[in-house]
Amino acid sequence: MALVVQKYGGSSLENAERIRRVAERIVETKKQGNDVVVVCSAMGDTTDELLDLANQVNPVPPAREMDMLLTAGERISNSLVAMAIASLGASARSFTGSQAGVITTERHGNARIVEVTPGRVREALDEGHICLVAGFQGVNRETRDVTTLGRGGSDTTAVALAAALEADVCEIYSDVDGVYTADPRIVSNAQRLDNISFEEMLELAAVGAKILQLRCVEYARAFNVPLRVRSSYSNEIGTLVNGSVEDIPVEEAVLTGVAHDRSEAKITILGIPDVAGQAAQVFRAVADAEINIDMVLQNVSSIDDNRTDITFTCPREDGPRALELLKKLQVEGDWKDVLYDDHVGKVSLVGAGMKSHPGVTATFCEALAQSDVNIELISTSEIRISVLIRDTDLDTAVRALHEAFQLGGEEEAVVYAGTGR
Amino acid sequence: MALVVQKYGGSSLENAERIRRVAERIVETKKQGNDVVVVCSAMGDTTDELLDLANQVNPVPPAREMDMLLTAGERISNSLVAMAIASLGASARSFTGSQAGVITTERHGNARIVEVTPGRVREALDEGHICLVAGFQGVNRETRDVTTLGRGGSDTTAVALAAALEADVCEIYSDVDGVYTADPRIVSNAQRLDNISFEEMLELAAVGAKILQLRCVEYARAFNVPLRVRSSYSNEIGTLVNGSVEDIPVEEAVLTGVAHDRSEAKITILGIPDVAGQAAQVFRAVADAEINIDMVLQNVSSIDDNRTDITFTCPREDGPRALELLKKLQVEGDWKDVLYDDHVGKVSLVGAGMKSHPGVTATFCEALAQSDVNIELISTSEIRISVLIRDTDLDTAVRALHEAFQLGGEEEAVVYAGTGR
Repeated sequence: MALVVQKYGGSSLENAERIRRVAERIVETKKQGNDVVVVCSAMGDTTDELLDLANQVNPVPPAREMDMLLTAGERISNSLVAMAIASLGASARSFTGSQAGVITTERHGNARIVEVTPGRVREALDEGHICLVAGFQGVNRETRDVTTLGRGGSDTTAVALAAALEADVCEIYSDVDGVYTADPRIVSNAQRLDNISFEEMLELAAVGAKILQLRCVEYARAFNVPLRVRSSYSNEIGTLVNGSVEDIPVEEAVLTGVAHDRSEAKITILGIPDVAGQAAQVFRAVADAEINIDMVLQNVSSIDDNRTDITFTCPREDGPRALELLKKLQVEGDWKDVLYDDHVGKVSLVGAGMKSHPGVTATFCEALAQSDVNIELISTSEIRISVLIRDTDLDTAVRALHEAFQLGGEEEAVVYAGTGR
Repeated sequence: MALVVQKYGGSSLENAERIRRVAERIVETKKQGNDVVVVCSAMGDTTDELLDLANQVNPVPPAREMDMLLTAGERISNSLVAMAIASLGASARSFTGSQAGVITTERHGNARIVEVTPGRVREALDEGHICLVAGFQGVNRETRDVTTLGRGGSDTTAVALAAALEADVCEIYSDVDGVYTADPRIVSNAQRLDNISFEEMLELAAVGAKILQLRCVEYARAFNVPLRVRSSYSNEIGTLVNGSVEDIPVEEAVLTGVAHDRSEAKITILGIPDVAGQAAQVFRAVADAEINIDMVLQNVSSIDDNRTDITFTCPREDGPRALELLKKLQVEGDWKDVLYDDHVGKVSLVGAGMKSHPGVTATFCEALAQSDVNIELISTSEIRISVLIRDTDLDTAVRALHEAFQLGGEEEAVVYAGTGR
């Protein structure tokens, strides 16, 4: 008998009809002889509606109370799924994050899981119940206050529970049926991958594939929890995320896929004095404002005035804030100018095969050149190449790379409509 | 410095605007130098919306899961009120029933409070915070499952907290501004009472005054918690419910008010054998179906066939179920017939003065007779007379009794629109 943890996203639970469908799948899994633990996100728009209510009573609500409010969403979806399971004749018990032993740090709105002590869940499983655990939430052991885990929180709850319960697999259900070699909405012959290593999935998640949040994959890799990405609308087997890139035999290592990202902005500081500590000052200021930096480029100093240029990218939503704080530093620092550009896009190629196949970078650049796509920034890891280009060139670039590295299948990919939550 | 517990009903919290108003009142109470604990019901229609969702996924949902679902409602309203308080510059902390130490029996959907151990609330009060506690909910100590308290649960939460914290007063806010000598929508010169004893309030609540639930008043009496019934839309002082009827000097004891009730049905069993145990069988069957009986009448046995008639009233919503089960017993028991009548109404006069003023019953019956209102059943307590009449006569009877006992004031009562939740 296996222990299966399943996680369902908000769009899979957006109304009573979908909740009943999810319940059928859960009961089916139980009937196949498995112990089943289910983690649900809040139903469809619940979280947005609660955020809207909060905003109406207080535009800057206290984080502790925000967590108390938002956790009601998963409480609702979980108990409804439990009821739907009961209506199919199976027995279900729902638990809050706190009841399921999800212990977190105290940072409201973006807490980290410290430990999972799922004694009550284990007990209920042993009594033959299907267990439902509210995702996205936990409890801070010191203050005993309710916390939320921030973006991708429900996926992380599922993986953390799977690790603590030593589950055989953690299935992540959404409206996409697996990990593809590229976005099927852009590349018509994109293929679904059967297998992908944790490291490759991490790289894909980091460069814009929205299928899994980075922290969830990191958690799964750290505790070696096999993940299966599946659709709640089909019976496709999905993609198994498992194993280390180190374990892939060289001959089998391939290029995995092309990811793209439209969510970044580019900031360039012109004419910054080329002396030690200047770059550090820039990045410290940005870091103190809790803005994540992605790609970075520093030009060679121009000889005549001993000044240089620094370019970096950050999330587009944080761009205006980053620009504002750098404009302030510009005066003190005697920089020539700070430029902002959010008409950029990032395209990346990921794959374990990059380590063993020489010439990947050359082919990458040639493919883009042949499609008249100009490269503005390059960054690489051992198994990834990313470049920043004009956002209007993004689709062309994705198709060109997918074609150049022969990632396509012979059939057209099925595109599911949906939000990809 | 006094400790004030305030309870706000769902209609006082039905949108962001009303929540901000409630927050203003709470902060005002705090600024006057009081410690403040607030218990909120779920916002307006939240509970109905959740019930509707539950019904869509499972028409007979498991009670444990129903409690998990419904308690989300108070969690939402409480955290929103806390946010609204914060926006006014005061500091608030919300707690679930479980966090506030509301320990209950395990009966889901209709649990009773066993104990309140509000250590965290006390601690937060001592740190200067306004405390919000989710009403209507608690936790079963044995199973650690979330429970709900059933009808009037939030009022009871407030009173139980007030008792455990030894509060100076428990204020119950709704859309009515106090306890009246009669329903002002029926009697135009009904007067608001300044004071009423626990026993009188209990009698009024028992016979249809919807202002406070019976169990909340019982709890307040048992722990001697002064209650103040106030409106969340005015600054009227409301009605203080306090003290025993025993403590009222005979000269000051008066008749308090007239209450009415349209929620009962009358069931009559005709020709039941007049032997020992027959009535017991009827009432045991009804009790086993968890149907509450109110008034009971058994006629004198008719001489010729040694049979009698039994009449009783029960909640109208349970009437069809009671009728069905008695129709089954009719065959076994050889009764002549079982009749059902839901066109009845009950009118009651309540007051400590009844004990010391002879002739109240006579005046009561005369007043109804003069208005051509026929009495079908009578029941009394030491401080109450109730009669069952035609529902179409109810308004007439209320006015006639209010007039006969000179309960009216000189001014017209202000009638607040609202649901009286």
